[in-house]
Amino acid sequence: MKKIEAIIRHYKLEEVKDALTAVGVQGMTVTEVSGFGRQKGHKEQYRGAEYTVDFLPKKKIEVVVADDQFKEVVDTILRTARTGQIGDGKIFVYDVAEMIRIRTGETGDTAL
Amino acid sequence: MKKIEAIIRHYKLEEVKDALTAVGVQGMTVTEVSGFGRQKGHKEQYRGAEYTVDFLPKKKIEVVVADDQFKEVVDTILRTARTGQIGDGKIFVYDVAEMIRIRTGETGDTAL
Amino acid sequence: MKKIEAIIRHYKLEEVKDALTAVGVQGMTVTEVSGFGRQKGHKEQYRGAEYTVDFLPKKKIEVVVADDQFKEVVDTILRTARTGQIGDGKIFVYDVAEMIRIRTGETGDTAL
Ligand SMILES: Nc1ncnc2c1ncn2[C@@H]1O[C@H](COP(=O)(O)OP(=O)(O)OP(=O)(O)O)[C@@H](O)[C@H]1O
Ligand SMILES: Nc1ncnc2c1ncn2[C@@H]1O[C@H](COP(=O)(O)OP(=O)(O)OP(=O)(O)O)[C@@H](O)[C@H]1O
Ligand SMILES: Nc1ncnc2c1ncn2[C@@H]1O[C@H](COP(=O)(O)OP(=O)(O)OP(=O)(O)O)[C@@H](O)[C@H]1O
Ligand SMILES: [Mg+2]
Ligand SMILES: [Mg+2]
Ligand SMILES: [Mg+2]
Repeated sequence: MKKIEAIIRHYKLEEVKDALTAVGVQGMTVTEVSGFGRQKGHKEQYRGAEYTVDFLPKKKIEVVVADDQFKEVVDTILRTARTGQIGDGKIFVYDVAEMIRIRTGETGDTAL
Repeated sequence: MKKIEAIIRHYKLEEVKDALTAVGVQGMTVTEVSGFGRQKGHKEQYRGAEYTVDFLPKKKIEVVVADDQFKEVVDTILRTARTGQIGDGKIFVYDVAEMIRIRTGETGDTAL
Repeated sequence: MKKIEAIIRHYKLEEVKDALTAVGVQGMTVTEVSGFGRQKGHKEQYRGAEYTVDFLPKKKIEVVVADDQFKEVVDTILRTARTGQIGDGKIFVYDVAEMIRIRTGETGDTAL
């Protein structure tokens, strides 16, 4: 089981969510964050204005998936979150040691 | 050392926190998130209204614990966060590679 | 690759960020969180008022770094986030299994 954590542009959330549910993702968690990546003098646009290296609002999405869903989910995020412009975001992947559904106590891939 | 990350109903936070401190938890972190789980046509209630599969506000709690506290903390969350209704939430568990208390520089279980 | 997650005092964010970029950190993510550590009867100050063990607003910063940057980044956070007073915060470290830059598809240390 893996956690896929993607920091994406705020306006890409709906498109990414719809694409993820279309490939069978059954749950996700979203957090409002702010951050910066490496611009090295380049500027990133946000709502028409240009910003130098400083915090911009982003969405963090977290999707925990079974290993056999992993590649399709990452590919779907890459495809839908990408604009080609600086600031498209990053995906970080972590191992999940265990997972439990609170209502039923179920664990493992089938409880995701 | 493990990180226990639980996504719970927003109104369960105080009850879960009180139960966790009662079993000896010494620290926790809370984030406002939104998310969805798998409803498959079922509906989840939020403040009296019914929602289909879309983002609902939830609380994410993170508790880093020593391995010998792990089972008790998970059981406490399961017991207090559960209502039996759809949408009770999920627990995800991660290994923690290292931990440091900033004020003192202490590390390891005794610094938690 | 490691994720360094630090929960720090809200007013320390700018100082920590400036110190991190000065040692070459190229990206970070910040989340508004609330939490408590272990006070054991001691009180923590927030905006002039004293609080007992309950949730206080904090900043969570997340910095994913290559292994060879790890020590310098941790030392920089310890040095800049510390006041010596109760409530300075904690650092948690996690292994990162994989990382991808969305715009280019690059992976690995050079994409951080
Ligand atoms: N090393 C990192 N650690 C933690 N968060 C990061 C890191 N790098 C980027 N982020 C997060 O990802 C968001 C988007 O980063 P961004 O897309 O600008 O990365 P980048 O490497 O600069 O790529 P690009 O050149 O396409 O802009 C940042 O605002 C930040 O929240
Ligand atoms: N696979 C997942 N990845 C990331 N977050 C998830 C995942 N599944 C659920 N969540 C988070 O947990 C919250 C609660 O999920 P929920 O309790 O509805 O899970 P469920 O499996 O649908 O269980 P139930 O059938 O009891 O509703 C979601 O709003 C979301 O924030
Ligand atoms: N075990 C833990 N699990 C998750 N988050 C924690 C834990 N301990 C502390 N935190 C987070 O770190 C923040 C700061 O903790 P704090 O600095 O008070 O730790 P402490 O161990 O009590 O150290 P001090 O004695 O210096 O106050 C808390 O508000 C909480 O968000
Ligand atoms: Mg960038
Ligand atoms: Mg559900
Ligand atoms: Mg404390």
